[in-house]
Amino acid sequence: MDRDKILLTPGPLTTTLRTKLAMLRDWGSWDAEFNEVTARLRRSLLAIIHGQETHVVVPLQGSGTFSVEAAVATLVPANGHVLVLDNGAYCKRAARLTTLMGRRCSVMGFDEAQPVSPTALDERLRADASITHVVLIHCETGAGVHNPLQPVAEVCAAHGRGLIVDAMSSFAALEIDARKTPFDALIAASGKCLEGVPGMGFVFIRKAILDACAGRSQSLAMDLHDQYTYMEKTGQWRFTPPTHVVVALAEAMAQFEAEGGQPARLARYVSNYQALTRGMAKLGFKPFLDPAVQAPIIVTFHAPADPCYDFKTFYAAARARGFILYPGKLTQVETFRVGCIGAIGPVEMEQAVHAVALALQDMGIASGAPAL
Amino acid sequence: MDRDKILLTPGPLTTTLRTKLAMLRDWGSWDAEFNEVTARLRRSLLAIIHGQETHVVVPLQGSGTFSVEAAVATLVPANGHVLVLDNGAYCKRAARLTTLMGRRCSVMGFDEAQPVSPTALDERLRADASITHVVLIHCETGAGVHNPLQPVAEVCAAHGRGLIVDAMSSFAALEIDARKTPFDALIAASGKCLEGVPGMGFVFIRKAILDACAGRSQSLAMDLHDQYTYMEKTGQWRFTPPTHVVVALAEAMAQFEAEGGQPARLARYVSNYQALTRGMAKLGFKPFLDPAVQAPIIVTFHAPADPCYDFKTFYAAARARGFILYPGKLTQVETFRVGCIGAIGPVEMEQAVHAVALALQDMGIASGAPAL
Repeated sequence: MDRDKILLTPGPLTTTLRTKLAMLRDWGSWDAEFNEVTARLRRSLLAIIHGQETHVVVPLQGSGTFSVEAAVATLVPANGHVLVLDNGAYCKRAARLTTLMGRRCSVMGFDEAQPVSPTALDERLRADASITHVVLIHCETGAGVHNPLQPVAEVCAAHGRGLIVDAMSSFAALEIDARKTPFDALIAASGKCLEGVPGMGFVFIRKAILDACAGRSQSLAMDLHDQYTYMEKTGQWRFTPPTHVVVALAEAMAQFEAEGGQPARLARYVSNYQALTRGMAKLGFKPFLDPAVQAPIIVTFHAPADPCYDFKTFYAAARARGFILYPGKLTQVETFRVGCIGAIGPVEMEQAVHAVALALQDMGIASGAPAL
Repeated sequence: MDRDKILLTPGPLTTTLRTKLAMLRDWGSWDAEFNEVTARLRRSLLAIIHGQETHVVVPLQGSGTFSVEAAVATLVPANGHVLVLDNGAYCKRAARLTTLMGRRCSVMGFDEAQPVSPTALDERLRADASITHVVLIHCETGAGVHNPLQPVAEVCAAHGRGLIVDAMSSFAALEIDARKTPFDALIAASGKCLEGVPGMGFVFIRKAILDACAGRSQSLAMDLHDQYTYMEKTGQWRFTPPTHVVVALAEAMAQFEAEGGQPARLARYVSNYQALTRGMAKLGFKPFLDPAVQAPIIVTFHAPADPCYDFKTFYAAARARGFILYPGKLTQVETFRVGCIGAIGPVEMEQAVHAVALALQDMGIASGAPAL
């Protein structure tokens, strides 16, 4: 009766019991045994992006947004100028935190149903030499768009501008290879596609720019250069780490590696995505995005046209069947979102579709078809 | 063989199995059930300081230092002037983060073996009308000093200055009563005397000053006013909460209340403190502090005078017996620290003393007596 619900959200996700069981111990944050967990985790993180030669990785306490803010604070100098490629809610958040901390920030707006345009970026960088850093959200989970990391990175590199990538919901699922994709910083977190529990983020920083980052952050807690320097010297986190979250992530990492790493994780999420969209199509639901620009991470569906539909009732009905859906985050269109990530497979996605079907029945709705 | 070691540190601490078992579930951070956990936790936190009428409490992701920085960032206006009462390492950290964020900061230095002086503060505030906020560390765990909260609060109130209290390692153990002790903000964290796991902090903010705090923080992630407003409106955390840490703290809170709340927790820690200092005295060890100014939270001992002593060896030998000690944090004197807090009682403290005795034997040291 009290079985755990499946979380079909962009995070926190459903994690394995094995990952959660790792939290049944208490660790001293000063102890060598815990330091070794941190060190091993950092090595594994770097290996995922093949970044051992080019990058370091700095873990940080807090949610993913804390790490995004820390990356901007640590990388962008006081006289820097950040250009945010904006096609969704998380882009707007990145722009907001950049502006708040007093860095000059410009926003280049794109349709939230489309990827950002590397060509438009190229023109913009050509026209504005004052821009020092570009911020890209790799998978914008506001709608679920897969943004073009490689071409954006090439444009930034060609113009000699820094690139900060928020890869929160793509890291460990979509391919990111530091050997062929140039970036200054890339950010992700524990509770996303690595299938750990939430509570820490981590930022990959290009070695070549690391020294120049010293003393840039106005925030002590978010100074990634300071965190890095201290960690290299002592093996410890600067301030109390979320020890249980860290060991859970290390355990999730072992399962990630055993599954076959990023290619295997992507394959499973693609299967989940296919099972979901296939099943939802049969119920009449229509995805908001063109499949060509859709990442297999989270899918935005149009709300059904039926006047009986209301998200709260729908959510509660699906929840009663064991599945936690996610509200839409678009301003113009009524939508809801369904995540494809977490420690789940196509079987859970088929069950989720069935739960959605029963939820529609409950509400007396014949079809999920939207009013297009 | 692989039994959990007892953590005699200022945190992370030893927690109960029941607290850790609460982390074996995954929670949707958008879900009403999780919102109810957060709401209940906030009510319980307020009840501990009897602050329902006067204060609100705002939880924040990250370690305790993140919450200290957030409190300063949220409360102190751009033209504010912070005076830090400094008798230890955590005071110095508070001054550093205040200066870094661009707020004017003065430091009033005191002996690290003594409490800060309310009389000296009174003179200083009388002499300098520009000081808008005073920062006090309630229990300075650098040495373990119990600072005089009530008189300091009265001095600040008499001068009409704001008081920000870092009560990280005292909250829920030492008495703090918002009905009789005036303060603008008071900060603590999950992994201290509430005996939760580390990963979140929380800040009590006086209702009367809350509105004026809007828009002061240059950090989005650390804007407690924004976090508060969003939480009141939606019941949710602004950014992904460390869900497992939150439910563990709620579970720890239930045990705290069942034990008898703050008075019972303090009584247990006092017993731990007594068992520790009694046993260590028999081995010749001498506490760094006068017992009159010592909080029963963490005890700093002088290192033994014996030339065979070295902290790393001592630490490893105590660790092999199941106890994790903590290094000293004083600049002038060689010391080590032993925590009295966590889900442990006098029995564990007696065992710890025995482990220390055996560690001395290992090292061929006859007595813990310092070279005084």
